[in-house]
Amino acid sequence: MKKTDVLVIGGSAAGIVVAISGKTCYPKKSFMVIRKEKKVLVPCGIPYIFGSLGSSEKDVIPDNVLTNIGVEIKIDEVISVDSKNKTCTTKDYTVIGYEKLVFATGSKVKVPNWLKGAEKENVFTVPKNKEYLDGLLAKIKTCKKIVIVGGGFIGVELSDEINKLGKKVTLVEILPHILLAAFDEEVSCKAEEMLKSRGVHIKNNVGVKEILGDKTATGVLLENGERLDADAIVLSMGYYPNTDLAKNAGVAINDKGFIKVDEYMRTDNCDILAVGDCAEKRDFITRKLNTVMLASTACAEARIAGMNLFKLSAVKTFSGTIAIFSTALGETGFGVAGITEKIAHDEKFDVVTGFFEGVDKHPGSLPSVQNQFVKLIVARESGLILGGGVVGGLSAGELTNIIGFAIQNKMTANSLLTAQIGTHPLITAPPTAYPLIKAAEAAVKKMNEKRGC
Amino acid sequence: MKKTDVLVIGGSAAGIVVAISGKTCYPKKSFMVIRKEKKVLVPCGIPYIFGSLGSSEKDVIPDNVLTNIGVEIKIDEVISVDSKNKTCTTKDYTVIGYEKLVFATGSKVKVPNWLKGAEKENVFTVPKNKEYLDGLLAKIKTCKKIVIVGGGFIGVELSDEINKLGKKVTLVEILPHILLAAFDEEVSCKAEEMLKSRGVHIKNNVGVKEILGDKTATGVLLENGERLDADAIVLSMGYYPNTDLAKNAGVAINDKGFIKVDEYMRTDNCDILAVGDCAEKRDFITRKLNTVMLASTACAEARIAGMNLFKLSAVKTFSGTIAIFSTALGETGFGVAGITEKIAHDEKFDVVTGFFEGVDKHPGSLPSVQNQFVKLIVARESGLILGGGVVGGLSAGELTNIIGFAIQNKMTANSLLTAQIGTHPLITAPPTAYPLIKAAEAAVKKMNEKRGC
Repeated sequence: MKKTDVLVIGGSAAGIVVAISGKTCYPKKSFMVIRKEKKVLVPCGIPYIFGSLGSSEKDVIPDNVLTNIGVEIKIDEVISVDSKNKTCTTKDYTVIGYEKLVFATGSKVKVPNWLKGAEKENVFTVPKNKEYLDGLLAKIKTCKKIVIVGGGFIGVELSDEINKLGKKVTLVEILPHILLAAFDEEVSCKAEEMLKSRGVHIKNNVGVKEILGDKTATGVLLENGERLDADAIVLSMGYYPNTDLAKNAGVAINDKGFIKVDEYMRTDNCDILAVGDCAEKRDFITRKLNTVMLASTACAEARIAGMNLFKLSAVKTFSGTIAIFSTALGETGFGVAGITEKIAHDEKFDVVTGFFEGVDKHPGSLPSVQNQFVKLIVARESGLILGGGVVGGLSAGELTNIIGFAIQNKMTANSLLTAQIGTHPLITAPPTAYPLIKAAEAAVKKMNEKRGC
Repeated sequence: MKKTDVLVIGGSAAGIVVAISGKTCYPKKSFMVIRKEKKVLVPCGIPYIFGSLGSSEKDVIPDNVLTNIGVEIKIDEVISVDSKNKTCTTKDYTVIGYEKLVFATGSKVKVPNWLKGAEKENVFTVPKNKEYLDGLLAKIKTCKKIVIVGGGFIGVELSDEINKLGKKVTLVEILPHILLAAFDEEVSCKAEEMLKSRGVHIKNNVGVKEILGDKTATGVLLENGERLDADAIVLSMGYYPNTDLAKNAGVAINDKGFIKVDEYMRTDNCDILAVGDCAEKRDFITRKLNTVMLASTACAEARIAGMNLFKLSAVKTFSGTIAIFSTALGETGFGVAGITEKIAHDEKFDVVTGFFEGVDKHPGSLPSVQNQFVKLIVARESGLILGGGVVGGLSAGELTNIIGFAIQNKMTANSLLTAQIGTHPLITAPPTAYPLIKAAEAAVKKMNEKRGC
């Protein structure tokens, strides 16, 4: 029997970070990461394999981030966990004893078995699997017309990248606009306009009824009766937590199918932790369970799990998921942090919103200036920042992180009004009209309208 | 006699923002901004007139940001203030009565009268004056060799811009490296290497002894005996607060020459406020008076003054200046927030530092990826973030603002470790190795070394 102090199952972002963080904090403990994949992909880089990167090889996370610090990597698959005897058994019949076990088993791609024709040739999904994606990329290169089903981040980014290859891409989204699961409508609409202007065809507000063709797919039939010809069809319809192994090990699973965890990322068995897409998420604002899967959230959880492996630190807890999404189309960045206005209304939060549209550099006459739009969602009474959206140049990603920090620090709109920021002509909005602060001003104005300023 | 409820003296960033903020909060009050300049320049845009913008006209702040909301603009100069009778007298003999007066008189360029030859023709400074700068730009265009004295932000940015015009630019800095007043040495050195690689010649660690030439300057003699030929010499040696008018009005001035203010930006006369470069600065961390002049700080002060004009709001105070500087050279951004390691040591703070160098996009194989370096200065015992420096791509400006938010919110290195950030391949560092968090990790490791992790 092999033995390791810490066994991490899964070698993507969360698995890597829990091992690095744990090994840094507990250097005398032995760490092993066990994973199925020979090579691990940067998960959020996957859509970019198709255009910007040009090959999956360029999207590989090097193993030496682990091996350099003494973490062992084993390419194998754990097929069962004996939590009583604290051992795992792998596909190649190795038994591995552990002191602490971490599930970082991630998520699996949703395959819509209910969809007629989904099993046909040239119908693909987007799993986090290098060989599969290499095959998909090779196929795409031979195609002229591609239909992508599902306008979430992966579908949108993939559409843009495949469009860059000179293919005719049609994106089908069942909701009224793309990215609506993450963004409020105005941000979604701006992203949609941008994607259209770049040449991607978009069919909104309509589902797919059937994949057409005999053995090989030749197109899709939409629910409104329209037919779209296609040489390849990519179904990008989401992911679900990969928890069969944990379930079979007797670890508690929540109603949404995620492994239950506490604020230290421990499962109901204190020697077993879970991090990343497979681990329970609770929204920072609504305090409800949610299903947000983000590499950045996964890494935050993994750091916390790694630091708390052998002793708990009260200051290193995970107090809820703040969904912070960002993406870019060409030179325009899009981001959202916290809850959207829609979620705020659905959950009956009493909120005001503040908007501002300015420029991302200054003066506005500088070359390459882009508009920068910021929206804030603010609790009316307390002024707490609950969420925000950004559309702007490529600094939109970090600007969204500033909103994320405001939420994490329970900042109010008033404290944003008096916040100090640094500005520079070539890289930020002007100090006189920094959209984040102007949006806070607009929100405070609404807060005060009821009270009299 | 004219009358206005609020009279703002000075029409640059601080004056504009105090008027906008005040008018927004007190819409029934009348506001007048009085200024000498026919047209006001975006102050931080001034260096960019010389290259990126190509003309001062493109750097003008439009008056309609004020007139659109009903703020009156008067082009004139206040020559005296009668604080007892609450009136101002202008150069054209108008007497203007006020209820509240705001000094936003800014700063004046330092002219080194002690420097032999500083009065010669073709020796320039960089005042915030459109006509003067138009003359300077016209002159520069006819020159081949330009010497710029003073390697602060203005000198550095001007060097880079004039170098872009194909001129031979030599920058002379008395300190060992450029930008050392704002940055720690490693950040300064990176900026210096970048500036050199772009073709600017740099003479470090040496002062200017004399401007050479008869009536017209022909070069400079350095303190080490070296002579530099020049067709024009630009002295960029700093600014000092413009407070003569306030002093003559009997308003209290501090030892550093700034108008004394409280946390609501009121002077010792509660009907007179001061904001921007002319107003007292107290460092957020050291709690000492300082002399930081930044448009972004000025605007934060101006917002606070505007909101507190007619009634004080306890949640809208200015609790000290957090210097947040950023700049860019080509595609590389540089930033600093809070105190530097050098200041920390000079002030006897017990600190640790944490560094990390990663990439600003991910995977690192993406085109246009740049290294991203983050340094944090952390109080050893409490873990409070006291400062940080960033060198990276153009998102460095907003990333520096994230550090600024961490300081303002009194975040600790441990809270950065568990912080949630959003990441995206095209616009941020990877979630697994986000330099800000990795730098916090490195700092926490050092904090724990004394204690045992």
